[in-house]
Amino acid sequence: MQFNITKDFLEEICTLIESDNSVQLEHILEELHFADVAEIIDELNLEQAVYIVKLLDSEKTSEALMELDEDQRDRVLNALSPKEIADELEEMDTDDAADILNELPDNIAQEVISELIDEQHAEDIVDLLRYEENSAGGLMAKELVKVNENWTVTGCVSEMRAQAENVTRVHSIYVVDNNDKLKGRLSLKDLLTSPASTPIKDVCKPKVDYVTVKTSGEEVSRIMRKYDLEAIPVVDELDRLVGRVTIDDIVDFITEEAEKDYQLASGISQDVEANDSIWDLTKARLPWLVLGLVGGIGAAAIMGGFEHLIKEYAVLFLFTPLIAAMAGNVGVQSSAIIVQGIANDDLKGSIGNRLLKEILLAMLNGVILAILLFAYTFFAEGEFLTSLAISISLFAVIIVAGLVGTFVPLALHKRGIDPALATGPFITTSNDIFGILIYFLIAKAIIGI
Amino acid sequence: MQFNITKDFLEEICTLIESDNSVQLEHILEELHFADVAEIIDELNLEQAVYIVKLLDSEKTSEALMELDEDQRDRVLNALSPKEIADELEEMDTDDAADILNELPDNIAQEVISELIDEQHAEDIVDLLRYEENSAGGLMAKELVKVNENWTVTGCVSEMRAQAENVTRVHSIYVVDNNDKLKGRLSLKDLLTSPASTPIKDVCKPKVDYVTVKTSGEEVSRIMRKYDLEAIPVVDELDRLVGRVTIDDIVDFITEEAEKDYQLASGISQDVEANDSIWDLTKARLPWLVLGLVGGIGAAAIMGGFEHLIKEYAVLFLFTPLIAAMAGNVGVQSSAIIVQGIANDDLKGSIGNRLLKEILLAMLNGVILAILLFAYTFFAEGEFLTSLAISISLFAVIIVAGLVGTFVPLALHKRGIDPALATGPFITTSNDIFGILIYFLIAKAIIGI
Repeated sequence: MQFNITKDFLEEICTLIESDNSVQLEHILEELHFADVAEIIDELNLEQAVYIVKLLDSEKTSEALMELDEDQRDRVLNALSPKEIADELEEMDTDDAADILNELPDNIAQEVISELIDEQHAEDIVDLLRYEENSAGGLMAKELVKVNENWTVTGCVSEMRAQAENVTRVHSIYVVDNNDKLKGRLSLKDLLTSPASTPIKDVCKPKVDYVTVKTSGEEVSRIMRKYDLEAIPVVDELDRLVGRVTIDDIVDFITEEAEKDYQLASGISQDVEANDSIWDLTKARLPWLVLGLVGGIGAAAIMGGFEHLIKEYAVLFLFTPLIAAMAGNVGVQSSAIIVQGIANDDLKGSIGNRLLKEILLAMLNGVILAILLFAYTFFAEGEFLTSLAISISLFAVIIVAGLVGTFVPLALHKRGIDPALATGPFITTSNDIFGILIYFLIAKAIIGI
Repeated sequence: MQFNITKDFLEEICTLIESDNSVQLEHILEELHFADVAEIIDELNLEQAVYIVKLLDSEKTSEALMELDEDQRDRVLNALSPKEIADELEEMDTDDAADILNELPDNIAQEVISELIDEQHAEDIVDLLRYEENSAGGLMAKELVKVNENWTVTGCVSEMRAQAENVTRVHSIYVVDNNDKLKGRLSLKDLLTSPASTPIKDVCKPKVDYVTVKTSGEEVSRIMRKYDLEAIPVVDELDRLVGRVTIDDIVDFITEEAEKDYQLASGISQDVEANDSIWDLTKARLPWLVLGLVGGIGAAAIMGGFEHLIKEYAVLFLFTPLIAAMAGNVGVQSSAIIVQGIANDDLKGSIGNRLLKEILLAMLNGVILAILLFAYTFFAEGEFLTSLAISISLFAVIIVAGLVGTFVPLALHKRGIDPALATGPFITTSNDIFGILIYFLIAKAIIGI
């Protein structure tokens, strides 16, 4: 059942496109799931991709467009006329259509909207454009099934049949009053298992989780995960039911957020993929590397301040990469745990307690590592005082690095800045500089120079 | 509608527990969603937690148990008798029950199983224990709604009503033949909109995505995301329908995998949370720090080999932390992009092409960074040859670091090892050592010493 694109299959498609054999192409592609068609289009050049999009039914291509790699989608949309884009949008769910319009330049988007034929659909899409991308309003679709609390089960079923035609997956049936205010929900199961004449009021579950159009994407995702929901209704400022967010959008949202955090932790500042152009990859990677370069120059400048010691205490300088690396590693570890705690909303206790715990933790790790380092340096170099100085400095550096790693994400979060920004190169670089400064100051004091 | 635990509310709960006011407690907690009850139990001490679990209906506590923090769940289960655990399991879905049994010591699990009253349920649970945790068999539940292809819509509905009682969410109705082989599926919507006498064969969609019990969790997650599925049927070696995986389990799976990758990239080797004990956190963090220490000692040893240059060319030594940091950063960036490409299954082309692209990318980044570094060192130190040596070495180090970062995860993946292991401290440490060695060799050659 699984479909995997082979090289032969792709070549066959390309040959059919070149020979303009639309009958055969349609025959092959109509059998495929839209996600598979998207995978094929991703592999084609622009001209071939546009050929396929124009060839197939909008019903299939509209869904395939949503699954395309973003860069490829941009190129394809760019090659279509506003009328052609509008045809695709007619077949899309309102949330997908709104996402597409958001990706287009304003003037093109305006033209596309004016080409939409289904007025209700157009109105719904335009309505969605008002909301911020990362909010329940921006994530929701207008498609849903709702019934009035004053109807009976029988009355409901026929009304629902009509509505359900436009809704890919029903999930829940939402119950509203005469003013469209959300009153509760009802599952298809409830409807199946209730006598036909029961009033909806009596079957409906009055307790229903909901969010407002302004609820953030993170919060929607947290609520849906916590309560294992597959769809959640969205209400406006007047408690009127205006849309619903479905779990597939949340799965995409979670995956994207996780990738972004992972990339931030790895020092990549934009959403890039391995297949992106060298230029895009450079733009994403270079800023953090420049930051690292500045940090390294800073470390060199600090070490330069102690250069008069280099002849007598060369060994101190040999261990600077070790100190910088340990400061960086400890900092990243502490900040990563805090960033995840914040993301999962399960940090307990005050900042003070959190820092205290990190000090204890860093002390435990620090003692063990300092003893190991002392054992090595004393054995290798044979100088007691220098070995002691290096080890004790390491201990101090680890504690400071742990504190910085804990404090920075907490402080950023308090100010409403994404704490994930603080992990990776940012913490590493600042800890490198701090670490080396502390190291030399303490070593100098211990050796007494 | 949202429920948030306040300190006052928790204190009220604690007071009620202490005064053994079970009537009032039941009254308050029965109103709450099981996920909220779980959040409360997470905040209580063991004795209080067990009190609540024993007090409430198994119907609620069984679901709450699944939402508890894993450590707290272990403690609570430990305090319950096998009979009490079996009571909870009776109310659970089979997949959750099997997960609980997997967490228990073998002898206890055996006792719990023998206490189960519902024989069909017990058989289903035991059946699930055979499968590996990270496979479709390990993720699936036995609960599903299936109908025979030879029935009619009417015949179906009454049979389904009985089955649906045990299934929290219906999603799809699976259609099987007389041998239980999966033949297709049917949505509740189809059933609602078809005439009562239609044979199921005519309504059923014969194309249905499915996985086998052995399909890996990653693959199940990839398929469900790609095709936007909310449930996928699982078949055994004989194509017989044996269970289904639902999207909520996949959401948990994706979240856990993302957290694990993020932690690996940050140098944390076990699944820990900010609230875990200092000892657990140390066990997760210390191994990578020791690796970093060994790397640092290696770097020091390499630098020691060039110590005779330290008097005349002290400036070379001042830039070692910079070189090590840049080598580490570039390595982590390259490996992170490869690791994500592997995870999303969208790496195109051969390893050779991939490495070539990384070389070009590293050259572009490297040239820019080398020029910046040259400008600084020449301006600050005024020595042309030394500045040139440092900058060219940086350029070389960046290329090698990029290649190592690209090659290692690809090689690990080819051998079936999780490539995420290669990111973070592992790449950083090896690149530190490599980087410093290359740096000194090249610098020495350029300066001609």
